[in-house]
Amino acid sequence: MAVTLYHWWGSTCSRKARTALAEKGVDWDSVHIDLHQFENWAPWYVKIHPNGVVPAMDHDGRIIIESNAILEYIDETFDGPELKPVNTWERANMRVWMDKSEHVLHKNMHLISHNNHHAHRWGEYAAKHGQEALMEKVRSQPDLQRRSDEIHNSDGISDEVVAFAVERVKDQMSMIEKDLERAPWITGDTFSLADIAVLPFVDRFKANGYGEEISEAKRPRLAEWFARIQERPSVKEAYSFMDPDLEAC
Amino acid sequence: MAVTLYHWWGSTCSRKARTALAEKGVDWDSVHIDLHQFENWAPWYVKIHPNGVVPAMDHDGRIIIESNAILEYIDETFDGPELKPVNTWERANMRVWMDKSEHVLHKNMHLISHNNHHAHRWGEYAAKHGQEALMEKVRSQPDLQRRSDEIHNSDGISDEVVAFAVERVKDQMSMIEKDLERAPWITGDTFSLADIAVLPFVDRFKANGYGEEISEAKRPRLAEWFARIQERPSVKEAYSFMDPDLEAC
Repeated sequence: MAVTLYHWWGSTCSRKARTALAEKGVDWDSVHIDLHQFENWAPWYVKIHPNGVVPAMDHDGRIIIESNAILEYIDETFDGPELKPVNTWERANMRVWMDKSEHVLHKNMHLISHNNHHAHRWGEYAAKHGQEALMEKVRSQPDLQRRSDEIHNSDGISDEVVAFAVERVKDQMSMIEKDLERAPWITGDTFSLADIAVLPFVDRFKANGYGEEISEAKRPRLAEWFARIQERPSVKEAYSFMDPDLEAC
Repeated sequence: MAVTLYHWWGSTCSRKARTALAEKGVDWDSVHIDLHQFENWAPWYVKIHPNGVVPAMDHDGRIIIESNAILEYIDETFDGPELKPVNTWERANMRVWMDKSEHVLHKNMHLISHNNHHAHRWGEYAAKHGQEALMEKVRSQPDLQRRSDEIHNSDGISDEVVAFAVERVKDQMSMIEKDLERAPWITGDTFSLADIAVLPFVDRFKANGYGEEISEAKRPRLAEWFARIQERPSVKEAYSFMDPDLEAC
């Protein structure tokens, strides 16, 4: 049995996959994809992941893509603790949160991070290689929806759009706070894929300067959950994976 | 055991839920939500589904929302044929298609249907009740992202946006065609939730005038799959559910 993860050290969805692999105790080989150099859009990688995003997982020659599908695959395929509740109603809530992690939290966090991080990264590349080289890279993004969105956002995102995105993430933080009234984990007494799926975005919201939104004063259950989940060995392992290129310097 | 489905006869996601219920042989009570009268945004319904969309399912007093989570719930909770493959790699592909049914197919089909159907429906309401009454309804949409999108689109969608959406759906049709090279169903030899999830959008693409895209001449495997799946009793039952208000006339 051989597992290879194609991922980037700081990517939210890569962290989801690494956390689940660590929970199950799966050994895996790392292929680090340098998003700063747009390696995710290189032809060799697009053969693995047709949308040119990370992560992708190779298990004995079969490729699995999309972080939520990867999480369910890891849980269903490998030994180790079950990462979903026994109760099917709790499982339904788990899947609603997994879906929102991608299509509400990730989507809006991408907008929140854009001006400070993504645009900055693009600017660095253009400063080094020229604007035309940058745009050539952008046009190599294989997913036409993402390409269109990226080109649309390439001059920066308005304060109004960012503010709207921040409000949408705050809504979700309040919903997590409410769900944690019932039990210690998001969908009940079982630590589940839902906790793994939303964590990177709680973490990233804080990294973007919104730590107050997950403070004890504002959302005490979310704050306690956030402190507690970071004590799990799987989370420590998944989030401490550092850029191997930096280590080599 | 009591199951109640809150749904609309013609809604794509309601059809997903009804097909899965029929496959499993589950008896259910119908609460028909009249989207033309914006009943989905009525306070009593928003207590059931906080986003004000259909379907929602009540099983013994517990509410399950989001069509993909409902599909998995139906499969995991009720007796009857298993609607997912045994092989976990095929299951991962099933979940990728379920995700795309919602976030690629549904999203783009909504844009394609807008000018001909949604805008028309809004216009009818405004003609009858006045523009201010319509906008009051729109502002009662509880999901702020959807509300913002609807207001943005309320004057109609440009030809350019529609053309882009049509191309995105065509991409997906080609991907289904390619997956059907392997086996008779989308993710393999097992009829699965993936087939149930994409069907309403293949059907709706045809209803929007793009039947040629699923013709034998253009995509023979998709055309054969589309003809074959419509012979299933579950599909006949789910898609023949008609507007009870019309029947009463």
